[in-house]
Amino acid sequence: MRKFLNNPDDAVDEMLEGYLLVHGGSLRQLDSARVVIRREVEHDKVAVVTGGGSGHKPAFLGYVGPGMLDAVVVGDIFTSPPAGAVLEAIKAADTGRGVILLLGNYAGDLMNFEIAARAARKAGHDVLLSIATDDIGAGFHDDVSRRRGVVGEFFIWKAAGALAARGGSLEEIKRLADDVNARTRTIGVASGACTVPALGHPTFKLADGDVEMGVGHHGERGTRTEHMRPADEIVTEMVNALVDDLPYQPGDQLATMVNGLGATPLLELYVAHRQLARVLSQRGIALHRAFVGEYFTALEMAGFSITLVRLSDELKGLIDAPTVTPHFVQR
Amino acid sequence: MRKFLNNPDDAVDEMLEGYLLVHGGSLRQLDSARVVIRREVEHDKVAVVTGGGSGHKPAFLGYVGPGMLDAVVVGDIFTSPPAGAVLEAIKAADTGRGVILLLGNYAGDLMNFEIAARAARKAGHDVLLSIATDDIGAGFHDDVSRRRGVVGEFFIWKAAGALAARGGSLEEIKRLADDVNARTRTIGVASGACTVPALGHPTFKLADGDVEMGVGHHGERGTRTEHMRPADEIVTEMVNALVDDLPYQPGDQLATMVNGLGATPLLELYVAHRQLARVLSQRGIALHRAFVGEYFTALEMAGFSITLVRLSDELKGLIDAPTVTPHFVQR
Repeated sequence: MRKFLNNPDDAVDEMLEGYLLVHGGSLRQLDSARVVIRREVEHDKVAVVTGGGSGHKPAFLGYVGPGMLDAVVVGDIFTSPPAGAVLEAIKAADTGRGVILLLGNYAGDLMNFEIAARAARKAGHDVLLSIATDDIGAGFHDDVSRRRGVVGEFFIWKAAGALAARGGSLEEIKRLADDVNARTRTIGVASGACTVPALGHPTFKLADGDVEMGVGHHGERGTRTEHMRPADEIVTEMVNALVDDLPYQPGDQLATMVNGLGATPLLELYVAHRQLARVLSQRGIALHRAFVGEYFTALEMAGFSITLVRLSDELKGLIDAPTVTPHFVQR
Repeated sequence: MRKFLNNPDDAVDEMLEGYLLVHGGSLRQLDSARVVIRREVEHDKVAVVTGGGSGHKPAFLGYVGPGMLDAVVVGDIFTSPPAGAVLEAIKAADTGRGVILLLGNYAGDLMNFEIAARAARKAGHDVLLSIATDDIGAGFHDDVSRRRGVVGEFFIWKAAGALAARGGSLEEIKRLADDVNARTRTIGVASGACTVPALGHPTFKLADGDVEMGVGHHGERGTRTEHMRPADEIVTEMVNALVDDLPYQPGDQLATMVNGLGATPLLELYVAHRQLARVLSQRGIALHRAFVGEYFTALEMAGFSITLVRLSDELKGLIDAPTVTPHFVQR
């Protein structure tokens, strides 16, 4: 293995210890669970909580701060956190206006977050869930609700966090989060898999010169293996698949993201953004705001994903709103 | 190759095109050369200019903005930019208070930046150079001036940019930059090399389970190949080598950085920071501010570097000062 770790079983706790050594001025961990929460509690505001498996850094922990997330429930690598930890997060984050739980569409997360939500409601907390299903790579063209949630969650966190900061109600934030998800599509491509530390070998093998189209961000294989082609051809195929899926229309205004999955240099991500902008322009679609970087990784997977979000006037303001988190600062 | 590119010869220009599509609101490229410069020209301020080969993103381009760099001269991948481009950058950036050229200690960069500085002085510009030599991995214990400049440059850019923003003179900024360099030490370790696109194969081969200690950030081999050991042992060895080199003393206050070289997950970088903080604490050295992330990469090299900077009261203020750049925002 090429990994710099101690005992793989300790990796998440050691990461958390390092993370709080750096960011402990604004964040703290609950004594009772692997939950990272803001030190500064904002009253009269819906709490925005997410969580999931580790290995996606800077997601999810990197985005806890004013204008975005209030608490994150931390699971083992690529593994859902337990329901008990989600419940602790709800209790700690709720200041009386309720808690929105934002999660990706994975069986383990769904089960644990729903169990926690039921228990929290019994204890008197208002809790609603919104489930991201932005990944078109998984297929399910006839039943979008079965798709995985991937980096599109970033836009849901950003918008929900901004609306919460403006005083939106729990119901308004739930509606917004579902709406952002409905406006968002992602597809990923990989030229190399990742290795889960406890497993010790890559989640799949690709021949040198092959790429896997439609990968998930837990090392899941995609829908087909292709030969590597020039980046512009690959990006064009991805953008067209995204545009045709929603479909996005001429005249739409978008937020876009080219997200590195771990081992693909930023240089290549900007080359991909160049072609993304060209294809959108050719299709008459306008680009309001573009993100290029590593926002949601799959350990050291080589590859990237492209996300499109159709903006409304309200959503523009929410995406553009300022936020200050350890790994995403926007003025 | 696992790279998502078109013709490798076009990679840097296509990256620049993508970069300016995203960040063109605050940055522009000169017509005459591969130079990226701030749109908002601040008068009555020394211009802070750097540059070098591409492939280190977010360095150097990611740090152009108020409080940090004014212009960057962009070379081909791992290749110095030509003297003519450096001269264009000086001419465009100088608003009358002079230009500080910050560069790493590489033969090509030295030659081209010095030629440009001489030509610029003839044309009436005040220009001084400061050369980073922070990498202890290259050896040269008897002649520090022969060492490479690596990610320690980040702290030089940050401090020089902050002093320039406060109205410091060219001579003061030159003294500061040299002083930051003298206070800064870096060492890198890799568990996998990188591939220069035009070359098409890794710059060196490591057996699975081996690591290379003392690597540069252009895929240069280190000083020795070792078996992979637990991360804490590797980090302890690196920190002790850094502390003993300067040497850093009990009671010193430091800025630190754990910098990913490209393909090593952020999770592992935080695990490394945890041990870095422990070793410093054991040695009685205080940690004022810590950076963990990908600040200066070597394409998709797997590994990381550790940097220590001994702070003065003045330097604390300069490192902590706000800045807003595409890939580094500090409030």
